[in-house]
Amino acid sequence: MTENSEPHKEKSLSVGEGQRPLKVALLGCGVVGTEVVRILTDQAEHLAARVGAPLEIAGIAVRRAGRARDIAVDPALITTDAQALVSRGDVDLVIEVIGGIEPARGLILTALEHGASVVTANKALLAEDGPTLFAAAEKYERDLYFEAAVAGAIPILRPLRESLAGDDVTRVMGIVNGTTNYILDKMDSTGAGFDEALEEAQALGYAEADPTADIEGFDAAAKAALLASLAFHTRVSIADVHREGITEVSATDIASAREMGCVVKFLAICELDEANDSVSARVYPAMIPLSHPLASVRDAYNAVFVESKAAGQLMFYGRGAGGAPTASAVLGDLVSAARNRLKGVPGVGESSYTQRAARPMGATRTRYHVSLDVADKAGVLAAVAHAFAEHDVSIQTVRQEGRGGDAQLVVVTHTATDAALSATVEALREMDIVREVSSVMRVEGD
Amino acid sequence: MTENSEPHKEKSLSVGEGQRPLKVALLGCGVVGTEVVRILTDQAEHLAARVGAPLEIAGIAVRRAGRARDIAVDPALITTDAQALVSRGDVDLVIEVIGGIEPARGLILTALEHGASVVTANKALLAEDGPTLFAAAEKYERDLYFEAAVAGAIPILRPLRESLAGDDVTRVMGIVNGTTNYILDKMDSTGAGFDEALEEAQALGYAEADPTADIEGFDAAAKAALLASLAFHTRVSIADVHREGITEVSATDIASAREMGCVVKFLAICELDEANDSVSARVYPAMIPLSHPLASVRDAYNAVFVESKAAGQLMFYGRGAGGAPTASAVLGDLVSAARNRLKGVPGVGESSYTQRAARPMGATRTRYHVSLDVADKAGVLAAVAHAFAEHDVSIQTVRQEGRGGDAQLVVVTHTATDAALSATVEALREMDIVREVSSVMRVEGD
Repeated sequence: MTENSEPHKEKSLSVGEGQRPLKVALLGCGVVGTEVVRILTDQAEHLAARVGAPLEIAGIAVRRAGRARDIAVDPALITTDAQALVSRGDVDLVIEVIGGIEPARGLILTALEHGASVVTANKALLAEDGPTLFAAAEKYERDLYFEAAVAGAIPILRPLRESLAGDDVTRVMGIVNGTTNYILDKMDSTGAGFDEALEEAQALGYAEADPTADIEGFDAAAKAALLASLAFHTRVSIADVHREGITEVSATDIASAREMGCVVKFLAICELDEANDSVSARVYPAMIPLSHPLASVRDAYNAVFVESKAAGQLMFYGRGAGGAPTASAVLGDLVSAARNRLKGVPGVGESSYTQRAARPMGATRTRYHVSLDVADKAGVLAAVAHAFAEHDVSIQTVRQEGRGGDAQLVVVTHTATDAALSATVEALREMDIVREVSSVMRVEGD
Repeated sequence: MTENSEPHKEKSLSVGEGQRPLKVALLGCGVVGTEVVRILTDQAEHLAARVGAPLEIAGIAVRRAGRARDIAVDPALITTDAQALVSRGDVDLVIEVIGGIEPARGLILTALEHGASVVTANKALLAEDGPTLFAAAEKYERDLYFEAAVAGAIPILRPLRESLAGDDVTRVMGIVNGTTNYILDKMDSTGAGFDEALEEAQALGYAEADPTADIEGFDAAAKAALLASLAFHTRVSIADVHREGITEVSATDIASAREMGCVVKFLAICELDEANDSVSARVYPAMIPLSHPLASVRDAYNAVFVESKAAGQLMFYGRGAGGAPTASAVLGDLVSAARNRLKGVPGVGESSYTQRAARPMGATRTRYHVSLDVADKAGVLAAVAHAFAEHDVSIQTVRQEGRGGDAQLVVVTHTATDAALSATVEALREMDIVREVSSVMRVEGD
């Protein structure tokens, strides 16, 4: 190398010229990773124009190097040593789409420590141990972005973190799991039972062979924790989220919802209680009125409904999963993180300047829809009404239908604490005139 | 002042400590400005925590200083000399909510020149002369944000500019004017005619005394220009936008739409034609299917439907106007611009790295719904069908209804160029057997 070539090389590498390629390491090359590579390759020119510098794939860490892939990748880029890839020191940006807690957590921490900004879609990891990761990002002055972790392609985290930063969000209510929305929508449109709808979802690839994470609400609970943290500027972990899945939802529940002009949706709800400076985060199936914007979210789509003091009601709608939609969110974050690298300063990090308590489910105010099989005789309605009154639960409507020797009572309550509602239902179960409490479901969205 | 107090003062003012207040100048104190002041005052602590420094109102420029206001403001802050306020040199952030071209343009340019970042809600100015303002922001390395200019409180510009920066948007279709959506929704739900619905909108404050800007589509056209510019990374001005208002929409059109399972909405449409690297931006009333997500946008709400290659279909929904919703968008931008001031680097500016041609309306492909009053005799349908075929317009459906001596033909076409469709309608008007072309309306959203 001559003496003259050194300064020239320096110049072409200088950030000021906007020419130095930014090196991107990809951890994981499954459905999402493949789409990320496809976009990085096909849209290289557009991305370079938007970032101000080319993005160059520095390496792709996979579990098995020999596996056939849907996309042509330079074999020299493939490695099974993810740890070495993120420790190289010349990587500017790391995309983590492996999922799960380890080795993802260790790899992200190593990447940040070695000066890379990180984009991840890993909701489980963030909801379990976000604070450790955010602290590392802050310490090393790098970005840690995760738009893809909640509601796939729908831009919801950035709007919460930036667009609504001058407003005060009071409530977030979302359909954030496509599998369960598909199942409930199918039950609603065809009258199918839960098992039948689940099988169809599995046959179509909307549900995994082991659907536990979706139908028991673990996936939605992780997303609720992330949404609540961003919306209310506090730290909410998955352990703070009250979780009920959809496995108990019956065709009768769906029909009952229809009768009262509602539809059953699996909701993630994050609420601020300003009086007590506490946050409620919860996921469960609930009835919402057909007129509510979330009621018309069909198939495997996601939507997030936000209420804030100045903006009022907002809704964000789109695809919550799938390779390409998730890759869109990952690439959006990647472009932002890349622009920040060029500027030499990280973007907006987590904002957790408040320390708000998690409100227990029992203290959270909700409404209930309760169906009872009761003896068809005089005084039943009065006795049932008394049981509600005794627990300070106010009845909004009650409908009585005779059916031979039995009758059915359908009660919809006004809002009351969840503890009072549960206690009422327990008391109803103890009453002789109540043959069965055939269904209990919360009602949301006025 | 003692020698010791100086260093202390310096320290408390240093940016590194995150303590120096950022000075905010407000230009205009009408409905939106009043809400901005209210939030800046009431939420001062929250805003300081989110920004990393307090925001301090440095001055409020108004037209008439003596006017009574809805909010308590220190009279010392009020000035009628906006030019002096933005030229002070110690102002960090300027909010422009005066509207109109001048003096707003001159004040924004002066503010940028004197080192302030600017947040504006001024769609008319940006759509007319955005490039001049963007160039000034770039030259002085300051932010020029304008989320409030399109669809009020709905975060749509930031998602387009940042969240979707790694994706390729192909189409944006929005209901971006609340006044016209209120009028059309009222016509749809009550069967009212246009004049009656307009009067009601005026009585309720949804329409101005002079409603021209709304009902003739000037407001929507300005927003279409901004959406198209951001979505397609090019420069689109209001002069490039094809504009038709809603004054010709009749109760019959609304009823015809219902008959074919549609609803009439006033749409702003921005489309990329990749083959010709051209952009079509247009606003007009059109029929869309009831199943389309935009069809259920009621009252004065706004919504923007976005289609992109990887993310697929997205929709953003919320309040498009009003003091508090617009203030929410202004404050979101203000917090971002303030954070950038503390970091010392501007945020993401305009991205207009492509130079895409504006596609003329005649070359744009649309579908038409055409109602004809025709003579009720043999051969009429054949003659009408021939007129469409002659202009290369393919008919999707045709419905014939006899009415005494006359008959009515309702034709819905497949997509064809707008020029071919216009020529067909002209030819139909010349035919003896066609008594009247009673209605022509485009059909959007498959």
